[in-house]
Amino acid sequence: MNPKVAIYDTTLRDGTQGEGISLSSADKLRIADRLDAFGVHYIEGGWPGSNPKDMEFFTEARKRKWKHAKIAAFGSTRRAKEVCSRDANIQALVDAQTPVVTMVGKTWSLHVREVIRVSPEENLAMIGDSVRYFKERGKEVFYDAEHFFDGYKDDPAYALATLRAAQDAGVDVLVLCDTNGGTMPHEVSRIVAEVKRQLHAAVGIHTHNDCGLAVANALAAVEQGASQVQGTINGYGERAGNCNITSVMANLVLKMGIPSIPRENLKHLRELSLFVDDLANVRPDIRQPFVGATAFAHKGGIHVNAVEKVARSYEHIEPELVGNRRRVLVSELSGRSNVLLKAQELGMEVNKDTPELREILKQLKELEHRGYEFEAADASFQLLVQKSLKRHKPFFQLLGYRVIMDRRAQDGQQICEASVKLRVGEKAEHTVAEGDGPVNALDTALRAALVKFYPAIQKVRLVDYKVRILDSGAGTAAKTRVIIESTDGDSIWGTVGVHDNIIEASWEALVDSVEYKLFKDEKRK
Amino acid sequence: MNPKVAIYDTTLRDGTQGEGISLSSADKLRIADRLDAFGVHYIEGGWPGSNPKDMEFFTEARKRKWKHAKIAAFGSTRRAKEVCSRDANIQALVDAQTPVVTMVGKTWSLHVREVIRVSPEENLAMIGDSVRYFKERGKEVFYDAEHFFDGYKDDPAYALATLRAAQDAGVDVLVLCDTNGGTMPHEVSRIVAEVKRQLHAAVGIHTHNDCGLAVANALAAVEQGASQVQGTINGYGERAGNCNITSVMANLVLKMGIPSIPRENLKHLRELSLFVDDLANVRPDIRQPFVGATAFAHKGGIHVNAVEKVARSYEHIEPELVGNRRRVLVSELSGRSNVLLKAQELGMEVNKDTPELREILKQLKELEHRGYEFEAADASFQLLVQKSLKRHKPFFQLLGYRVIMDRRAQDGQQICEASVKLRVGEKAEHTVAEGDGPVNALDTALRAALVKFYPAIQKVRLVDYKVRILDSGAGTAAKTRVIIESTDGDSIWGTVGVHDNIIEASWEALVDSVEYKLFKDEKRK
Repeated sequence: MNPKVAIYDTTLRDGTQGEGISLSSADKLRIADRLDAFGVHYIEGGWPGSNPKDMEFFTEARKRKWKHAKIAAFGSTRRAKEVCSRDANIQALVDAQTPVVTMVGKTWSLHVREVIRVSPEENLAMIGDSVRYFKERGKEVFYDAEHFFDGYKDDPAYALATLRAAQDAGVDVLVLCDTNGGTMPHEVSRIVAEVKRQLHAAVGIHTHNDCGLAVANALAAVEQGASQVQGTINGYGERAGNCNITSVMANLVLKMGIPSIPRENLKHLRELSLFVDDLANVRPDIRQPFVGATAFAHKGGIHVNAVEKVARSYEHIEPELVGNRRRVLVSELSGRSNVLLKAQELGMEVNKDTPELREILKQLKELEHRGYEFEAADASFQLLVQKSLKRHKPFFQLLGYRVIMDRRAQDGQQICEASVKLRVGEKAEHTVAEGDGPVNALDTALRAALVKFYPAIQKVRLVDYKVRILDSGAGTAAKTRVIIESTDGDSIWGTVGVHDNIIEASWEALVDSVEYKLFKDEKRK
Repeated sequence: MNPKVAIYDTTLRDGTQGEGISLSSADKLRIADRLDAFGVHYIEGGWPGSNPKDMEFFTEARKRKWKHAKIAAFGSTRRAKEVCSRDANIQALVDAQTPVVTMVGKTWSLHVREVIRVSPEENLAMIGDSVRYFKERGKEVFYDAEHFFDGYKDDPAYALATLRAAQDAGVDVLVLCDTNGGTMPHEVSRIVAEVKRQLHAAVGIHTHNDCGLAVANALAAVEQGASQVQGTINGYGERAGNCNITSVMANLVLKMGIPSIPRENLKHLRELSLFVDDLANVRPDIRQPFVGATAFAHKGGIHVNAVEKVARSYEHIEPELVGNRRRVLVSELSGRSNVLLKAQELGMEVNKDTPELREILKQLKELEHRGYEFEAADASFQLLVQKSLKRHKPFFQLLGYRVIMDRRAQDGQQICEASVKLRVGEKAEHTVAEGDGPVNALDTALRAALVKFYPAIQKVRLVDYKVRILDSGAGTAAKTRVIIESTDGDSIWGTVGVHDNIIEASWEALVDSVEYKLFKDEKRK
């Protein structure tokens, strides 16, 4: 299906301009993988000229096969009085070797005069030359017209001339940017309609949320014929954030019936939103439209009653369409079917009539109440179900551990040592190890103790370690959730631990990880 | 000045339907006082029939003199086959003795049939009778047409008939409600325009944010002639929340030039927003349009440079108009101008010609490369600048610390103990403390060691503790960044620490926090 409106994700570039958002190039690749699987049409990876981290992303991105998305590199038009072949920024875009190049240039005569200080004619030439340079090299080229709406309101003739310069150079999409986020929806409608009348190139829209109107502005542009929407997952971005494409995708497809992302894929919308928050270490906005934890939560007694009678009476869509679910806040309704689905999805032998299902559900609720989260911890969830079904066979018995950390001022160095004592069958084992930190030392000691009984443990290594402070207002005594991802080369699994003490929480997740590996291997026999 | 658009606040009623929002009647009165002082036109205090807390509010509210606002009580139309004088809900509204009564009734034939199960004619009579009852008693009466847009789309003739029933009974304002929050702005425009054509009574708008469009929908209705906007401060409310009137007021007055709240009063908008979050115990959304902490924060080097040249080049309004301020984020993308602006913003005596500026910048880049982040750690940044300027005077000298964590299987309990050794002047101090975890124990021991030299330390407490694993792919040996927020009751400051060892990273941030407190107090002398 050809999208009528293409989704252009700039979480990895404009999103990282948001306060507190910082992604490693490994994080960026993982997010890009998810966006690709989700069906996003374009993924802007970064600004190759601006820092080495972004260039690293593009180098890795070239080695991968992308299923749906095209990767875009972002940069600005050539400098004044420079030729493209010698312009460092343009050449960095060439080096990124992406199929798509997005270039930003100046629209607003105020900026041309007072910020970059070039003549209006030179600015037009900068735009035209830069677009042409990449079109001649066979790229798909998008032109981001910075401050388009402000520029248009100030000097419409010049603003349109900048677009025409890009159009004449063969640009694929003219992206109208509300860079300052100050434009009202009725202005966006009027101005996009005018652009569509005056020019024939395809039009895109890039908005910011300074007035709380970024999503509305994007939709207003689509109504006037824009065929590309730029934005970020969860609306990350500078100031009040970019246009939240999480909401845009749901609105376009589910509410306006406009072909874009396949409708089916939206079932993973909540998952995608949480995944990105997780990697960016951003606390999810529980009130976020469509995907937030409370987006379909009902509190008022009347509402709850009515929802039971006629679901659509207080729900504008079925929560499942975006991978969310209805919640009743006064008395938590059972997620019986969720648990069942999840367990079956993991290949466990559980069905509606399994008598232990109620017990599993009860435990799960209890654990979730204490701060556990199993969305990224399938392995811990499986162990929990196994234990509830009394099918769990313990592979070892923990007798204790100790961690000592010492820091002396003489040399500023600290040492960190962990000892672990456990029993496998009749044999006790007591090992000690040093590490970079307490958790690393414990991890090493635990595996040293187990490896002679279970040599397969040798292959396990941790690929990810995440810490979230729950209720961070409690200061250093706050509850901590640790999520660990491990691999043995064949598969990757996640485990979770929660405790007031970060070391104990980490230990829980470590032990689950090792147990799951042994459980998995045994099942295969 | 007569407002062209009146603001009707329902934070105290519909806002409290939001998850986690709960206000005592004392809180409600304090919020109402603030809203009144701010210039809001109507304050909905609650639903007197629904709970005793709300009735308490109305009893207190009667005793006060309100400067600008009128107090409204909310309730539903009379029950089926009942007369108003015997209807308990109607009588509770009478007892509330407010100048304004807002009544909600059914618009949608689906609801009339399947939820309340009365005949369409009886529903019209319920609306008409209830409105008339309060008009005869001299009240200002607003009619909230629940599910108006869904009802209209389903059965326009009946939806309009419900409005007409209220109009014929003498209603003051017909409030069109997008109860499920699923209506698109272009639909709101079209339907409000149609209502204005068909009816002569004044029209209001009440929207919800399920599609991220509540503010846009309210503005769309105003453009079609709505003269009252209902919503909540900070967008509190069920599911994805109500229309955020914080944004609506700023947009109406500052962006659209529509008389509503006096322009002057908007200078207290950020203050109002924070005050309400404070009383409701809600963590402020830093990205909230207009009033959020990052709403006027600049990170990208190019932007910062341009903002210095022409403020409006990246700011749609002056931050001071809504009581906010420009902030410069010191980040990896930072250049010289960020650092300088930031230092000046913090009141430090640094200018473009300060010779140490280059050295500070170099150190900052080096630290950021190692994973430090100063965006949320102003205090660490200040200490860094002080140290670079050789103005820093150490308050104590750390000799070392030790942490021991022990967990035995017998009882599953673990103990965690920390000892700290430091010197103040000639005196050495060696303290020990237990804690919930290693960092909590260190925090307690550190403060126990310092308090006899610096009693002010006693007042410091941690309000937030955040952990982020950098490059989480390195497993448990990954680098950890810890950000701590502390307060002494007067102000809040942030500090940062980075290390492979989470305990050492936390220790760094703890020490910075304490040093900053001492530095701050000394500066004041």
